Amino acid sequence: MSAEDLESALRQIGAERYHVLHPFHRLLHGGKLNRAQVQAWALNRYYYQARIPAKDATLLARLPTAELRRAWRSRLHDHDGDAPDTGGIARWLKLTDGLGLDRAYVISTDGLLPATRFAVDAYVAFVHDRSVLEAIASSLTEMFSPGIIAERIAGMLAHYDFVTPETLAYFTPRLTQAPRDVDFALGYVKQHARSVAEQEAVLAALRFKCDVLWAQLDALYAAYVAPGMIPPGAFVPDPASSQ
Amino acid sequence: MSAEDLESALRQIGAERYHVLHPFHRLLHGGKLNRAQVQAWALNRYYYQARIPAKDATLLARLPTAELRRAWRSRLHDHDGDAPDTGGIARWLKLTDGLGLDRAYVISTDGLLPATRFAVDAYVAFVHDRSVLEAIASSLTEMFSPGIIAERIAGMLAHYDFVTPETLAYFTPRLTQAPRDVDFALGYVKQHARSVAEQEAVLAALRFKCDVLWAQLDALYAAYVAPGMIPPGAFVPDPASSQ
Repeated sequence: MSAEDLESALRQIGAERYHVLHPFHRLLHGGKLNRAQVQAWALNRYYYQARIPAKDATLLARLPTAELRRAWRSRLHDHDGDAPDTGGIARWLKLTDGLGLDRAYVISTDGLLPATRFAVDAYVAFVHDRSVLEAIASSLTEMFSPGIIAERIAGMLAHYDFVTPETLAYFTPRLTQAPRDVDFALGYVKQHARSVAEQEAVLAALRFKCDVLWAQLDALYAAYVAPGMIPPGAFVPDPASSQ
Repeated sequence: MSAEDLESALRQIGAERYHVLHPFHRLLHGGKLNRAQVQAWALNRYYYQARIPAKDATLLARLPTAELRRAWRSRLHDHDGDAPDTGGIARWLKLTDGLGLDRAYVISTDGLLPATRFAVDAYVAFVHDRSVLEAIASSLTEMFSPGIIAERIAGMLAHYDFVTPETLAYFTPRLTQAPRDVDFALGYVKQHARSVAEQEAVLAALRFKCDVLWAQLDALYAAYVAPGMIPPGAFVPDPASSQ
């Protein structure tokens, strides 16, 4: 495959497997969830946000040159911020605050669905265990994130009276950060995935990452939408939030 | 806690969190699933079976004495057998054969639910990363397995005409192997978990392992029972098996 054909194949994976296609997201963005279900989403997704710097630091430790490390380092600034109460994780906590969740409870991850923890930890392990090329390729779901974020901001503001622009503060900076990150990661992958085996590994890495995101929504759907099968020990919504 | 109180607390975790309580098992044992749904269960559970020796070898590598390693080694014999086509994994493939699944497809794990892979890999990682005491304690779901296996054999033979004693050959030896394994692991835990912190770690390890089993059934339920939300790339049943 040429580099351009590889990019097309990556985009095709997004068209078929990115979690914007999951029924849970259609419900979330379409205003079909109650406050408790949106709480469950934000609470579980917090763990993904909180582990992203661990994922990026794991990769950073494996990058061979200062140039590559500098390029990747910006992700740590984005997520951990440059001062207390700045950065993506802090902004995610503004969302869980705004939804009425206790901050200490969210940070404890005590109420997490086990499947959320397993999926997110699998992502960190993948970046630790696989080749640097695969690890970088697994970040490429960001190719598809501006679309889902734009849809999410518009849909959630339109449909939920418990959501405000302030509580969605996490998402707006991502609209510019993600494309910058993609420029680097996609450029790296297109330059370094030359053999058939490398290109197949890159495509498999992106499929894996789509699975990580999809599995998190499957677990939310099973526990909080479908038959209400909340696993033992996981977050139990306040009935007043489930109207 | 005394050693006996610790054992009681472990049994209480089983009473509240063991996957025999999951709706999927109630359907499975009660004859309420169709052949395709039983196939999906057997296909996914194959990955758990296939990784158990990796889990045990990981622990074996961390055990400090020949005496401990010899005691744990029997689990490798149980699962991998002593000759081709013997042992637990080979017997599990008799089950997937009997259910009409292609053996090469099962072994490839291509049709696995991603959540199955994440949960099982989390178990192997736990045994690698945590203390030996916690790693041994995480095996203690076997305290509860003879009950579920007896219920499963009776229920599946009574309710499914596509299930025979031969296809359930996996389970019968487990009725004697599991109690022998429990004797050792429970004895070890009761002897070595003396401090409050150690006892709490042991209880948390068993809760974690219950989560690993529960999450696998959540994923099966979500994909193949509840709304039929099969994740992209996972096993799609033959419509003729879904009657």
